[in-house]
Amino acid sequence: MMSATRWDVLLTGARLATLAEDAPFGLIDDGALAIAGDRIAWVGRRTELDTVDHPSAVETIDLGGALVTPGLIDCHTHLVFGGQRAREFDMRLHGASYETIARAGGGIVSTVTATRAASEDALLASASARARALLADGVTTLEIKSGYGLTLDDERKMLRVARRLGEELGITVRTSFLGLHTVPPEFRERRAAYIAEVCDRWLPTLAGEGLVDAVDAFCERIAFTAEETRRLFERATALGLPVKLHAEQLSDQGGAALVAGFGGLSADHLEHLDEAGIEAMAGAGTVAVLLPGAFYALRETKLPPVDGLRAAGVPLAVATDCNPGTSPLLSLRLAAGMACTLFRLTPEEALRGITVHAARALGLADRGTLAAGQRADLAVWNVREPAELCYWIGGTLLRQRWVGGRRAG
Amino acid sequence: MMSATRWDVLLTGARLATLAEDAPFGLIDDGALAIAGDRIAWVGRRTELDTVDHPSAVETIDLGGALVTPGLIDCHTHLVFGGQRAREFDMRLHGASYETIARAGGGIVSTVTATRAASEDALLASASARARALLADGVTTLEIKSGYGLTLDDERKMLRVARRLGEELGITVRTSFLGLHTVPPEFRERRAAYIAEVCDRWLPTLAGEGLVDAVDAFCERIAFTAEETRRLFERATALGLPVKLHAEQLSDQGGAALVAGFGGLSADHLEHLDEAGIEAMAGAGTVAVLLPGAFYALRETKLPPVDGLRAAGVPLAVATDCNPGTSPLLSLRLAAGMACTLFRLTPEEALRGITVHAARALGLADRGTLAAGQRADLAVWNVREPAELCYWIGGTLLRQRWVGGRRAG
Ligand SMILES: [Zn+2]
Ligand SMILES: [Zn+2]
Repeated sequence: MMSATRWDVLLTGARLATLAEDAPFGLIDDGALAIAGDRIAWVGRRTELDTVDHPSAVETIDLGGALVTPGLIDCHTHLVFGGQRAREFDMRLHGASYETIARAGGGIVSTVTATRAASEDALLASASARARALLADGVTTLEIKSGYGLTLDDERKMLRVARRLGEELGITVRTSFLGLHTVPPEFRERRAAYIAEVCDRWLPTLAGEGLVDAVDAFCERIAFTAEETRRLFERATALGLPVKLHAEQLSDQGGAALVAGFGGLSADHLEHLDEAGIEAMAGAGTVAVLLPGAFYALRETKLPPVDGLRAAGVPLAVATDCNPGTSPLLSLRLAAGMACTLFRLTPEEALRGITVHAARALGLADRGTLAAGQRADLAVWNVREPAELCYWIGGTLLRQRWVGGRRAG
Repeated sequence: MMSATRWDVLLTGARLATLAEDAPFGLIDDGALAIAGDRIAWVGRRTELDTVDHPSAVETIDLGGALVTPGLIDCHTHLVFGGQRAREFDMRLHGASYETIARAGGGIVSTVTATRAASEDALLASASARARALLADGVTTLEIKSGYGLTLDDERKMLRVARRLGEELGITVRTSFLGLHTVPPEFRERRAAYIAEVCDRWLPTLAGEGLVDAVDAFCERIAFTAEETRRLFERATALGLPVKLHAEQLSDQGGAALVAGFGGLSADHLEHLDEAGIEAMAGAGTVAVLLPGAFYALRETKLPPVDGLRAAGVPLAVATDCNPGTSPLLSLRLAAGMACTLFRLTPEEALRGITVHAARALGLADRGTLAAGQRADLAVWNVREPAELCYWIGGTLLRQRWVGGRRAG
């Protein structure tokens, strides 16, 4: 990677959490990092710079000892939606049951109604505000799911907003089609027809329009069965699209093994995952995406089997699951801290979970570590210790964000 | 309060969460709020403005429907300290016991060592960064305790930093002297001598220097007994200083009843509070300060008796307890959200807990509601519903902060 004739930027005085596997956090104290174009051209100790032959840098910036990590990657969000559900939150805390809330028009159906009613521009504006909160915390790559439209046109609208958000914010947005999120009211008595509509018409149509990077579903007693999910995944596979799954959140449906059987990118949530599911994921290289925000907000008590996943060598990612019902979480760094405090990940595991393993959960091999050849997506922090990113709860620790080799905030 | 000859500022198009008791959140939709000098001069519905005789306003600002609350008040912090304890957080998540961490130099003693070693300017710089995080979340009044110096000079240094912080940030800082936080290493074999030193020399000296607004202690099996605390409170009372107490966090020591017996401002933590303690607090008008950040970070399971406190009419406040060991929490809004999710406060209770009841916990009657005559300390938000302040987890919802009638960010 020394082929560049010049370096555009050389960052020095950096504590680099490269996430290489040779040291805790892949830490290089007093490090330097060179950028050429949109790529990292060189990473190492500053003193090594004197011993290697290298191009001159157009600009050199001394970071004064600040910590540098890869730009953070939020690999599971439902960021695009209409309205919010604060009133429902309030009602629950006044003792209202889920039935009472549903009768009052609450629950996921209220978000579907608000999302359908919102214009594409209105959805973009509200999602943009939420995305900016994530970016202020160091995010440079973001996954966004559909699943609150639940008509062809409204699912398209959500996915278009996700694409526009990437352009507006100058970041990478990966879309997931989540038509099988819940059965919409108008199909309540025609469940099989809904599955057919999603699999046979909406998915191929939206994929054909280039709006779908991956296919997701909610496999759960209260949502879709493993067999219904399998039908979707067969169709996705036929279209050449990777799959992922909301699996084992509230009960064990064998979803993790199912998605692993399709060579899936990730199985997400996993509180009720069993040993067979872990083995299937390990065998397939499917990433376990942990979502502690939903665990926290729902006051769950059953922990995902972190020890078993770790022992089996399953890569662990962490994401916000940002959504209006079960995880109105606007900070990926806080998700990582929750993964430590609630799920007992180490800070290093949590940091890998929002960088290199999150990249893998999105099928992206060009980011998530600081190494020559990787995209120059960086987060520069006002702290020195990588563990501080998980230790401080709230607050703004970010100093700078770099996206594709350029300062972006 | 119509006596001002003119209004400096008139805010219109505001959804005012006044926290008056006549409506949920004291909400006034389409409200207006007038400021004269550092005070609120008038609050009401915008349409009422046409029907009352009022001075003209130098400047009128339309907030476009934004939510306005009183400036937030964090009534329990240990914001001034040297170092941080992220390494200890990391060690714990690698399975290290508290003993192992203590042997490795961790625990509160490490913070005492780092605080003693730090210059006043260095402490100011690190505390200022943390305070700015709180301010970015709408805080306009802040309590800060000593208790990591544990020599006369180092306690003075901490309290001076707290005072300077108030000047630097243009906010109100209330100090609490917490000499009885832990027995410092050099007094470990001379416990009685330490109590005497704190009560008979340090407290009167620092009070005489105008550095002490209130007196606090940590009454707990691992810290100071009720009798030791009583001696301190008698001295404080003789000096005319109000008292408050870290009480019933890990065990029931009768601390809440003790501090109530002195007409104390607040009893804080309270997970192990019993019925007698609740009654004593209710009788004395002592505020219950709930600290869900420590509960969360320590993964406690015993909840404070919120139902009992509520039934007895004890005012509930909520604070960050920002400290490097048990609550590295940099967001008061997140503390309020945790008070809902973890402790089952309603959003309205939580919002009163970080405004009007927090003011009362600091003995301040001139703030915490939006009413004529109160200080014009305001937070203007990018949301419309008061419950959203507790519902969204993380993110930056603040649009503007007003302190003493002036825009402060
Ligand atoms: Zn999800
Ligand atoms: Zn405390």
